[in-house]
Amino acid sequence: MPLTPDQIAEIEAARATPRPTLRAVSEGMEAHLYRAHEVLDHGFIRVIDYMGDDAAIVQAARVSYGAGTKHVQNDDGLIRYLMRHWHSTPFEMCEVKLHVKLPVFVARQWIRHRTANVNEYSARYSILDREFYIPEPAQLAAQSVVNNQGRGEVLTGAESARVLEILKRDAAQCYDDYEAMLSQDGQQGLARELARMNLPMNIYTQWYWKTDLHNLFHFLRLRADTHAQYEIRVYAEAIAATVRDWVPLAFAAFEDYRMGGVTLSAKAIAVLKRRLAGETVGQEDSGMSKGEWREFMEVWA
Amino acid sequence: MPLTPDQIAEIEAARATPRPTLRAVSEGMEAHLYRAHEVLDHGFIRVIDYMGDDAAIVQAARVSYGAGTKHVQNDDGLIRYLMRHWHSTPFEMCEVKLHVKLPVFVARQWIRHRTANVNEYSARYSILDREFYIPEPAQLAAQSVVNNQGRGEVLTGAESARVLEILKRDAAQCYDDYEAMLSQDGQQGLARELARMNLPMNIYTQWYWKTDLHNLFHFLRLRADTHAQYEIRVYAEAIAATVRDWVPLAFAAFEDYRMGGVTLSAKAIAVLKRRLAGETVGQEDSGMSKGEWREFMEVWA
Amino acid sequence: MPLTPDQIAEIEAARATPRPTLRAVSEGMEAHLYRAHEVLDHGFIRVIDYMGDDAAIVQAARVSYGAGTKHVQNDDGLIRYLMRHWHSTPFEMCEVKLHVKLPVFVARQWIRHRTANVNEYSARYSILDREFYIPEPAQLAAQSVVNNQGRGEVLTGAESARVLEILKRDAAQCYDDYEAMLSQDGQQGLARELARMNLPMNIYTQWYWKTDLHNLFHFLRLRADTHAQYEIRVYAEAIAATVRDWVPLAFAAFEDYRMGGVTLSAKAIAVLKRRLAGETVGQEDSGMSKGEWREFMEVWA
Amino acid sequence: MPLTPDQIAEIEAARATPRPTLRAVSEGMEAHLYRAHEVLDHGFIRVIDYMGDDAAIVQAARVSYGAGTKHVQNDDGLIRYLMRHWHSTPFEMCEVKLHVKLPVFVARQWIRHRTANVNEYSARYSILDREFYIPEPAQLAAQSVVNNQGRGEVLTGAESARVLEILKRDAAQCYDDYEAMLSQDGQQGLARELARMNLPMNIYTQWYWKTDLHNLFHFLRLRADTHAQYEIRVYAEAIAATVRDWVPLAFAAFEDYRMGGVTLSAKAIAVLKRRLAGETVGQEDSGMSKGEWREFMEVWA
Repeated sequence: MPLTPDQIAEIEAARATPRPTLRAVSEGMEAHLYRAHEVLDHGFIRVIDYMGDDAAIVQAARVSYGAGTKHVQNDDGLIRYLMRHWHSTPFEMCEVKLHVKLPVFVARQWIRHRTANVNEYSARYSILDREFYIPEPAQLAAQSVVNNQGRGEVLTGAESARVLEILKRDAAQCYDDYEAMLSQDGQQGLARELARMNLPMNIYTQWYWKTDLHNLFHFLRLRADTHAQYEIRVYAEAIAATVRDWVPLAFAAFEDYRMGGVTLSAKAIAVLKRRLAGETVGQEDSGMSKGEWREFMEVWA
Repeated sequence: MPLTPDQIAEIEAARATPRPTLRAVSEGMEAHLYRAHEVLDHGFIRVIDYMGDDAAIVQAARVSYGAGTKHVQNDDGLIRYLMRHWHSTPFEMCEVKLHVKLPVFVARQWIRHRTANVNEYSARYSILDREFYIPEPAQLAAQSVVNNQGRGEVLTGAESARVLEILKRDAAQCYDDYEAMLSQDGQQGLARELARMNLPMNIYTQWYWKTDLHNLFHFLRLRADTHAQYEIRVYAEAIAATVRDWVPLAFAAFEDYRMGGVTLSAKAIAVLKRRLAGETVGQEDSGMSKGEWREFMEVWA
Repeated sequence: MPLTPDQIAEIEAARATPRPTLRAVSEGMEAHLYRAHEVLDHGFIRVIDYMGDDAAIVQAARVSYGAGTKHVQNDDGLIRYLMRHWHSTPFEMCEVKLHVKLPVFVARQWIRHRTANVNEYSARYSILDREFYIPEPAQLAAQSVVNNQGRGEVLTGAESARVLEILKRDAAQCYDDYEAMLSQDGQQGLARELARMNLPMNIYTQWYWKTDLHNLFHFLRLRADTHAQYEIRVYAEAIAATVRDWVPLAFAAFEDYRMGGVTLSAKAIAVLKRRLAGETVGQEDSGMSKGEWREFMEVWA
Repeated sequence: MPLTPDQIAEIEAARATPRPTLRAVSEGMEAHLYRAHEVLDHGFIRVIDYMGDDAAIVQAARVSYGAGTKHVQNDDGLIRYLMRHWHSTPFEMCEVKLHVKLPVFVARQWIRHRTANVNEYSARYSILDREFYIPEPAQLAAQSVVNNQGRGEVLTGAESARVLEILKRDAAQCYDDYEAMLSQDGQQGLARELARMNLPMNIYTQWYWKTDLHNLFHFLRLRADTHAQYEIRVYAEAIAATVRDWVPLAFAAFEDYRMGGVTLSAKAIAVLKRRLAGETVGQEDSGMSKGEWREFMEVWA
């Protein structure tokens, strides 16, 4: 369980004292503020702050397009129009700040999204806690045989047990040795910036991460996708659940156009048009490679 | 006067209805929300939203540095430490969104600051208003004779009057012609995206501009500087006055280390050390060029 | 004609002296280097420098995916795979630097693409030339009646002639007055940073613009699109022609997946699947708004 | 030794075949191309490509400032002027692409510099090699007693030997277990994206990293600094040595104004002026905190 009684008390205290503001307020997001949504075995995401709501997106768009937007009769229609036509700047007018606790190997993937602000817990200054991600047996899968990147079948019980045993033992030993190297009991004690290198990448770190809604949608599209690694996908899904409450109209448009949408190449358009005209088309006369055709047929079989 | 009665009423309405929030609240910034601070003859800046306060900077820093920051006893000391050591990420945890009305030639300089989100009024969609920046006589200055970029003495009354006459006449004529080309009265009417090209660059545009505090400080350092063009400097100064109320500790550190500070080259350090040791140093034995020495002596004469 | 004899001589000189390099060389791009491709009446684009080629994209991808990419048998297949799956970082490994001469109102749209490096000619330091964009009669179109943003029918000859007359007259007068204000003949002469505000936005400016291939593709997708304003689209098309010669495999993939592709929403997918199954679907039972359905039918009628 | 005979042969082959180009060529940088500069025990940096040279910086600046730059008589003076006045855009016109092999804990610090393009070797796709950073004994230092972030005295021989023993043993065991979990010999074999979490952060990874000269200078200023962790500083120093050969004028200006320079706060300026006027000033009447005064006296004692 990731939260200590102290942390729960701190969250309750922060939630106990509403203050008046003249800013845009999203009731849905207020309900999430500071609360920890647990992810994996020791991780969480918490909303620390936010700026804007659905109306702020509309407001920014109407500054841009002025009287030109009056023909779109309602906010929902305008937000869907903006999403459909890749007008990204109105969505950038909303911002969110999260506190995230996550394994280092997940953090390394996450940080590749560069348009964000980050303050990570520093293992040069401070000592990391003894908390490691140990997967649930249901998540211990073999290497995929069809995809160089990805998982296949769940491991058998015996192999699964061996893996868990290894992960726990190595984490414990590396952490014991981290502490032993740091210790100033009867020795000088190794510098923290050096000792940390002995820690495996399933150790937990934490950071504050702040980004705008446009870039957050981009993150969610890639990381809440079924091809994303499970361990980052569950973070993306937990975040997505808060975004749905924060900006419900924008999130619905995002789901329809991005999460539920597909991009077709010129070749794929041509094939679909031939099929709509009654023709039967196979890979060999599609102009697509085998891999491309396989991906195409996953949607259009 | 930039604000119409309708606009004033709209601002008053927005300010009349505080709502409860659990987020960090800056009392100083709440007092500015939505209010228009007039700049130049028709321009303004208005704070539309903000995220964070001085405590949010400290909070983010303590996530990064953990127990390592405990020796800094107070928020002010920590904020000054962060500013002194160029730790930019905690300042990025604050965000502000402004509504700005400004002449196009100022907007063209402003947009060079790329790390920001912008929604500008679109003259493809909509028709611009007949509002042009006409400088005060006190701002009508001659080209500097010592600086290729900058102003020298104020123009004499007669020349000044001729310039004002020209600026007003050309603005009026270009706008009359803009309207004439757009008109659908007895003709088809030119497309707005084309007609706009006839407008001179002292016409006013407006945008929503959103950025984080670190990048805002960078903007202010360059644009509130005495070397910046007057017409953008007055915007920077108006913004700075709101930032002072928003994050007073961070702003004080910014003033001490950035606005009031200087950067010394290795050569300049060597000269100052020689002078501190009692030596008299001139340009020829300073290792500096004449231009560099002149700039050095502006501070250290 | 945008190029003076001096400029042509300078370009010829730069092209006359090849030097040996060990870097990746794109023969197709070498043929473009420094040459001015004329755009509009006084504008141009010129390739000043480039980094990388198709092989550099593949090389970067193979660093990322290591042995995992060996099953893709050739460079073309790998590049198409990267483009199809939105793997943007390998395309970022190529970079291009352009010299562009363009009207200010086009520059204002262009600069909205923030992930690029820009050095623009400064009208604070220097005096702009008397060069204005005056459209061809075939480009003088009325405001679109179906689209708030865009052009409709070409203007009639009489209205067209009036518009041209206005544009030329106002440009000439504003520029005459710009010179008159700057003049130091019998007066002090207004500072350049002030005088420039009298110039209309069809005056030409110029800049060096440097970006990576991923962001350039994004620019081309938005600006070479039929919905982009003609005056920026012709620049995008001129750039696209050089990119085709620079990285032919990447450009072909870009054309198939981006320029020639479409994005379908979840609702649109559902409609197409129903039509593939033999059903007839109309707007009212599509779940789409009228505007969305009209856009859908433009492709799938 | 980081390079295998195969790698050396590959580098020699790449260096054996110069090709003609019309682009700007830096002779100093050509000498570095592809060659591995060894860093730490298994790491290296290699220049893969570059764009521009000192002349390209000057050329871009002259586009911006036009005739206004003519009074600066030479390239060196102009480059120093640009650096002194924080004109960053001309330096952004140069770009470099590096291949870097580095420990994961160094990579995690490095990636915080967001304005860069990165392709990292993916441990989801591929299997990492058995290569770990094991410090030299001279680098095994105790935690600093005056600085929460940093190293103090070198460990004694006995403690140092224990630390090395631990680092080697844990690395070996974790890697053995990584291989054991991946193995498909008599079992299914854990997915690579999961097995990697067992690896400690001194394992080596590699990436292509591409950035512009302005951002590279920022990286070097922070990471080649004496306060940076030794393990990233040696990378910064190796890169700096190639930059010196690439753009010698810009690098000399960078050394004078950035690496060798200091920033003074308004308070520090006031103290120095009082001292120049003959006054003796101590911490208590300086307006500075004790920490700030200590840092000030490190330069100005």
